[in-house]
Amino acid sequence: MIDQRREEALSPQTEERANPWKPGARMGIIGGQGEMGSLFAGFFRRLGYRVEIADRLTEKSNEEVARDADIVLFSVPLHRTVEIVRSLLPCIRPHQLLMDLTSLKGPPVREMLESPAAVLGLHPMFGGRISTFEGQTLVACPVRIPSPAWAEWKALFTGQGLRVKESTPEAHDRMMSIIQVLFHMTTMLAGRILRDLEVDIGETLEYTSPVYRLEMSLLGRIFAQDPALYSAITQMNPHTGDLIEMLSRGLEQYRKWYEEADLKAFVEDFERSAGHLNSFTDWAYEESSAMLEFAARWRKARHRTEASIPPGEAPPTPPSRSENKD
Amino acid sequence: MIDQRREEALSPQTEERANPWKPGARMGIIGGQGEMGSLFAGFFRRLGYRVEIADRLTEKSNEEVARDADIVLFSVPLHRTVEIVRSLLPCIRPHQLLMDLTSLKGPPVREMLESPAAVLGLHPMFGGRISTFEGQTLVACPVRIPSPAWAEWKALFTGQGLRVKESTPEAHDRMMSIIQVLFHMTTMLAGRILRDLEVDIGETLEYTSPVYRLEMSLLGRIFAQDPALYSAITQMNPHTGDLIEMLSRGLEQYRKWYEEADLKAFVEDFERSAGHLNSFTDWAYEESSAMLEFAARWRKARHRTEASIPPGEAPPTPPSRSENKD
Repeated sequence: MIDQRREEALSPQTEERANPWKPGARMGIIGGQGEMGSLFAGFFRRLGYRVEIADRLTEKSNEEVARDADIVLFSVPLHRTVEIVRSLLPCIRPHQLLMDLTSLKGPPVREMLESPAAVLGLHPMFGGRISTFEGQTLVACPVRIPSPAWAEWKALFTGQGLRVKESTPEAHDRMMSIIQVLFHMTTMLAGRILRDLEVDIGETLEYTSPVYRLEMSLLGRIFAQDPALYSAITQMNPHTGDLIEMLSRGLEQYRKWYEEADLKAFVEDFERSAGHLNSFTDWAYEESSAMLEFAARWRKARHRTEASIPPGEAPPTPPSRSENKD
Repeated sequence: MIDQRREEALSPQTEERANPWKPGARMGIIGGQGEMGSLFAGFFRRLGYRVEIADRLTEKSNEEVARDADIVLFSVPLHRTVEIVRSLLPCIRPHQLLMDLTSLKGPPVREMLESPAAVLGLHPMFGGRISTFEGQTLVACPVRIPSPAWAEWKALFTGQGLRVKESTPEAHDRMMSIIQVLFHMTTMLAGRILRDLEVDIGETLEYTSPVYRLEMSLLGRIFAQDPALYSAITQMNPHTGDLIEMLSRGLEQYRKWYEEADLKAFVEDFERSAGHLNSFTDWAYEESSAMLEFAARWRKARHRTEASIPPGEAPPTPPSRSENKD
């Protein structure tokens, strides 16, 4: 019988027991041909990882790539992440590290923990089309990984200019219910109404206030992106039901005050919310004023170089509609 | 008996029959010590108008100032505009011109039309704190004013760099139900929820995505401003009831799809809204990307000069909370 311990001592992993997933290790990216997968494939290749990709059009299957890797990185659509992780569980081994790039952390991390491998959940707070990693935020859930190995990963990410925010899957998903679900849902509601009223966006822009223009720009940005991703982010968060309930209660309150022409109640509600935000409102006013001034200058420069950009027409280089963020 | 026609011929007004309201004329601003009133007092003084102001602390009353003026400009809170116009109707004469700066145009314009004077409704699509009129939009409803006189006013405004958008009071108020009511109401709902959940804004910003940061900045901007103004804009628009109903129906739809875990319905809804926005989404993606890049640069520069701006702390020069926009 072969001495297991001796064989282990000979393998490259155990030479570096603290972190067998350093640059030079083999990384398999499941879903590596999407926008986000491609972005991170490039990122890790530049760092020296031997990256192999599994996607619908690759020769190797998910299983083959996962089996051959020291690190398996899931970069697949949010609404399919759990099912894809589950399908690969049978071929995952103890010395491997599983990572994912999903916008929710609870369900994917729980599924990865079903394996015998180490687990590091990630959520890049940026899309696949960024031009630099510098200053971008990466949320990390180091749920089952030796501390020294996690410290090295963190140093590797921050060394590339990323801001790393450590979190638990639960705290992350709660934060995302605010950062993503609340804002996406109100934006999607506004989008529905623009559609149902058949509002001519170009016409509204003739009445432009700078703030409205920026708001419309952010609304349009959401709808320029992947419908499946945004729908899944909004619908699959564990706090979505509560948020729908709170929005609904708030709206009924507004309806009541509206019907009673109770302006005072409206003003008090506004003041209470402003009170909670407190001095953040001053900071926000300053920051948004700088944005609005820049927006005005930017549009002017844009108009000078291209005669005019009618809001209803596509710019010269329209970005692709597909954003496979997860 | 004095010859009325001869007396009229001697008055400065009739020397310039087509437009008795040229620079040099007397303008009385009702509410002229508010932010917006002060802004326009300066604007018209620089153009050569003899501006007199009535406000709570002025010696002259609203009536005295209105009686002595060729032009009466109302710059008073939206929720009190109709009542203040009405109180001055008894002293308004046929050769006068009434203007207002209110965020809604239907009710104030209808009230001004009760007078025998000429009527020009205005809505500056900017706040009282702007640093330049250049490129700002002014919506104008020239409802009862001779065409040559209106042409001269328009030239006067555009000569100062303003973009003038002509509209009817009804079309204006319908546009504002989208531009202002829809966005303010969803923002106020979000503000309520941040408050009810006692969300720590500073903590959410640690998880910052650049888009969320900009969204929060715009949300905070609303709450940095006058509660009475924003409440009145949101509650007094003739289309507010319809918007509340549409938001409510949309939300019930989302609740249903959420409870049935019907991701497909959500995706289809998203795609239909994106379809209505059409190529505007490309334009929006491009414009918002430029904003986000600028935002990142701006924050970096800000950090370099001031070590750090914790989101929870006030910036060095907080703007005043009072914005008497109307």
